[in-house]
This record gives sequence, C-alpha cells and structure tokens, in this order.
Amino acid sequence: MITPAAPGATAPHSIKRRQITGFSNPTVKFIRSLRDKKHRKREGKFLAEGLRLLTDALESGRVPETLIMAERREAHPLLAALESAVAAAGGEVIETSADILAKIIGKSNPQAVAGVFDQFDTSLAAFDREAAPIWLVAQALRDPGNLGTMLRTGDALGAGGLILLDDCADPFSVEAVRASMGAVFTQRLVQAQWDEFQPWLRGERGQLVAASLRDAVPYRGAPYTAPCFVMVGNESQGLPEAYEAACDLRVTMPMRGRADSLNAAVAAAVLGYEVLATFDSRK
Amino acid sequence: MITPAAPGATAPHSIKRRQITGFSNPTVKFIRSLRDKKHRKREGKFLAEGLRLLTDALESGRVPETLIMAERREAHPLLAALESAVAAAGGEVIETSADILAKIIGKSNPQAVAGVFDQFDTSLAAFDREAAPIWLVAQALRDPGNLGTMLRTGDALGAGGLILLDDCADPFSVEAVRASMGAVFTQRLVQAQWDEFQPWLRGERGQLVAASLRDAVPYRGAPYTAPCFVMVGNESQGLPEAYEAACDLRVTMPMRGRADSLNAAVAAAVLGYEVLATFDSRK
Repeated sequence: MITPAAPGATAPHSIKRRQITGFSNPTVKFIRSLRDKKHRKREGKFLAEGLRLLTDALESGRVPETLIMAERREAHPLLAALESAVAAAGGEVIETSADILAKIIGKSNPQAVAGVFDQFDTSLAAFDREAAPIWLVAQALRDPGNLGTMLRTGDALGAGGLILLDDCADPFSVEAVRASMGAVFTQRLVQAQWDEFQPWLRGERGQLVAASLRDAVPYRGAPYTAPCFVMVGNESQGLPEAYEAACDLRVTMPMRGRADSLNAAVAAAVLGYEVLATFDSRK
Repeated sequence: MITPAAPGATAPHSIKRRQITGFSNPTVKFIRSLRDKKHRKREGKFLAEGLRLLTDALESGRVPETLIMAERREAHPLLAALESAVAAAGGEVIETSADILAKIIGKSNPQAVAGVFDQFDTSLAAFDREAAPIWLVAQALRDPGNLGTMLRTGDALGAGGLILLDDCADPFSVEAVRASMGAVFTQRLVQAQWDEFQPWLRGERGQLVAASLRDAVPYRGAPYTAPCFVMVGNESQGLPEAYEAACDLRVTMPMRGRADSLNAAVAAAVLGYEVLATFDSRK
C-alpha cells in the first residue's frame, strides 16, 4: 500500500521541495539526458538511482546536488536523511509525479528516487597510489556491468580504486553505477590512455600484474608486492601483447576446461583475492 | 568486404540448403520465438548465436538440429564444418536474407549464424556427482549474465556443472548461453527445487559450502572435501538462512570496504578457485 507522504512526514519542515508537474520541464529533460553518455560528459554530472545507492553515497560523504522523487510515496527515514543532507548542502529537492519520474529513470516504481552528482576528477594526477596496497586496472573494458562489478570487488578487496585504460565503458553510466552497488562512491576512478599510464606507473614504485598465457608463473604464491596493479583486458580481445609484455609479473590461473579465459571481472576478482591473501599472510 | 558465397564454397556439394525468403515463414517465426522463455520451455529447444559459440558446441559434440545463416556471407572453414556436421546428423541448413536473419537474432550482422538445439536433461537424476570434484550451485539467481558467467567459471575450474536451485534465470536464454562462452555445452546443467536437492545431496557423499557471515571459518585454508558443492544465493537477497544452516561448511571472505557481499558470479569464482587450489595442493 502506498500512503501519500504528509507534508513534513519524510523531512523537516524547513526543507523546500520544488514541485514539477510537466514532462517538458527543463530540469526533467536535463536529468533524463544524463542517461546518455554524451550529455553526461558535457555536463560533468551523473545519475544514481535508488534509495540504497543514494544512502551508500551519503554514507561515503557524497551528496547529490539534486534529489528527485515521486510526490506520492511511503515515508522512509533514509529518504528523510537524504533530503536533509541535500538541503543542508544547498542542493535542490524535487517532487514530481510517478509518471514523470518513470520517464526519467526508465521504469515505473513509485518508490523511486534519483540523485544528480558531479562527476569525480578521474585524472592520474589526482590520486595517491600509496593510499592502498591493491589497485584494479581494466583495459578497453566494454561492459558497464563488468565495470561496476570490478568497482564492487575493489571495495571488498580494500583496493584503492579502478584505473580505466584506453576506451572503456563509461563508469558514470546508470548501469555501471548500479552494478557497483555503491562502490562508485568509495573507490577512486581513474581514466587514462596507456601512453599516459605507463610513464606515470614507472615514476614511482608499483607492480603491474596480469593473467597471461605467455612466460607466466602460477598465480598462487606469485611474488606480489604493494602497490600492486592488477590488470585485465578487453572482454573479447584480452590484453594487447605489448601491455602483457610491460607487466612486472605475468601469472597463469588454472583453466581446466575448454575455455582459455575467465570473464574479465571474475579474473580480476580471483587474482585480486590472491594478492590480498598474499599480503595478509605477510603481516 | 562481403563476398557472396559461391555454391559449394562453404560446404560440400551434397549439402542441401533450404532457402527462406519470407518474414512470415513458419520456420523463421519458430526460431525467433525461441528468444522467449515460454516458447523455449514448450518446445524444449534453445538458440545459440555466432560462429564461435556454434563451433564450441560442435567441438563439445553438440550439433544443432537447424542451422540458419545469411545467403550472402564470407566463406569460412568453421562454417563449412558446421554445415557438414548438421547435414551428417540429418539436420537442416537454412539460408535466408540478412534482413530476415537480423529479425531472428535481433541485430544486423551479415556474418551471423544461429543454431537451434534440443535442451538438455536438467534433472538431478541425470548426473553423476562423482564425475567432478567441484560443482557450482546457484539459488534464485536472476541475472542471465551471472548465470552464463558461472557456467564459464565452472568450465575453467574443471567443475562438473551448475545446479540451479529454485526460481533462477533460464539457462537456455540467448543471454545466458552467450555469457557462458560455450560452457553451456560442456558443463552439466541441473534444475531443482531446494526440497528435492537436499535429500538428493544427502543420499551420497558431498559437501555443501557457502559464503556466510554467520558461524563461519575463513575461506582460505578451510577443510574442503570433494565432491564440493559451492553455493551462492540470489543477487539481492543472498541465501535464505535455512540454506546457510544446511551447509556443511560456512566460510567468510574478506570484505574490507563498505559492502558486505560480492557479485554472485564473482563470489562463486573466488570460492571455487580456493577449493580447486586446496584440492590441487593435496595431490
């Protein structure tokens, strides 16, 4: 049963909510446009959907600049907390019809809520490799679900973040953000070309590791050292040979069946957990 | 450049190819209907797309009963091998326009080829647990990509197959088959309700293992024994408490970040590789 929210039921009285009633409202159009990569890039914003994801963002210190929700919805303490945080940060809280919200988020759900965030600085210069013992690296990763899953795995591993090399899926797409299960707000995101990454990597200490079939040692018990950069390649092509050759350590994982590779996000996870176990065993 | 296949260029002269020119042809409608779960179930058939996947099938001893391809295409030795195998098995080879093929496979690709297969027997009674040391088990897994990825991981692990408990995504969907990268043809597939699986499991030896936060030991170095059934739960709910309680072994994996779980296919892989390493170390 859906109970219309009484005024003030889900947020302090002081919070102003802007009502939007028209499909052609520019704010509605703007938020909706963030489903599209070109618009996200131009605006430097992205969209995260769902109370759980937005709560993860808040708990990670990320407050949306705009919060949009349906005018008839059940009250929820987490939503009230979100509203308060957005208002306190000078953001805007928007109420609209379930129909208009459905147009924005692409599905009908009267409990839906979405937030607009600024994209993060994803430059190589902006992060400190010594902040974590493990970093995940993906080259030309095309599937946003794999990308989000790698972020989620990185969070679980205690990795510092995910470095996206060359032409990867957009980490700020709705699909990648969703698959990250909130890790897009906790993991560092870096975007770089290989030609920038290589000199950056070699400027300080850091071990580049990849699964490979050539000139490799067993992944189990390999001499991993921190900060360790665990790299996986494109879903259908794998890593370019030159990238494998540039690694400090090439490892093999058992392949007992017909296939000669794992899903990219799976390979990163199996390898990442091995690195973590190695580091833990030395403590 | 696309060169129209000369007669006999891609297959021996003896192979008869049926030409289909109409969108409303019943065979076209039938093949297209296999994109839909209801029809797949009723017909007991499924569709696999792409030369690589069909070649994997062939090399695993699975021949489609119907092969359908575009009438203007490049000759390819693997396609010729497929045609020969289908013809030798008494199946049908169909040629049609790129437009009609695009209607069937849902995207435009003049090199496309698709095959219709009989679904496999997925009953508990039909498989031998002693055939492999590891089996993957998924409960209420909803995402066909995760399901296919688990099949692919199982192949790499040398697992025997994937046991799908309760209401899972359809393993014969085009998405699951594609994500399996051919492993749907090499891994055993089993579908069962928990109430059938439990007594079956306990009828012979077998260790049921799951990742759990309750009453668990570290996954690293846990006392795994073959045949080991590695179980993961639904993407958003995880495993029901009763299922966890029924496990012989509950293990924890490090969760160093905010999240308290991994993607289901990732968890199965990390755990599965640990089990494999444990068994290998005892050899």
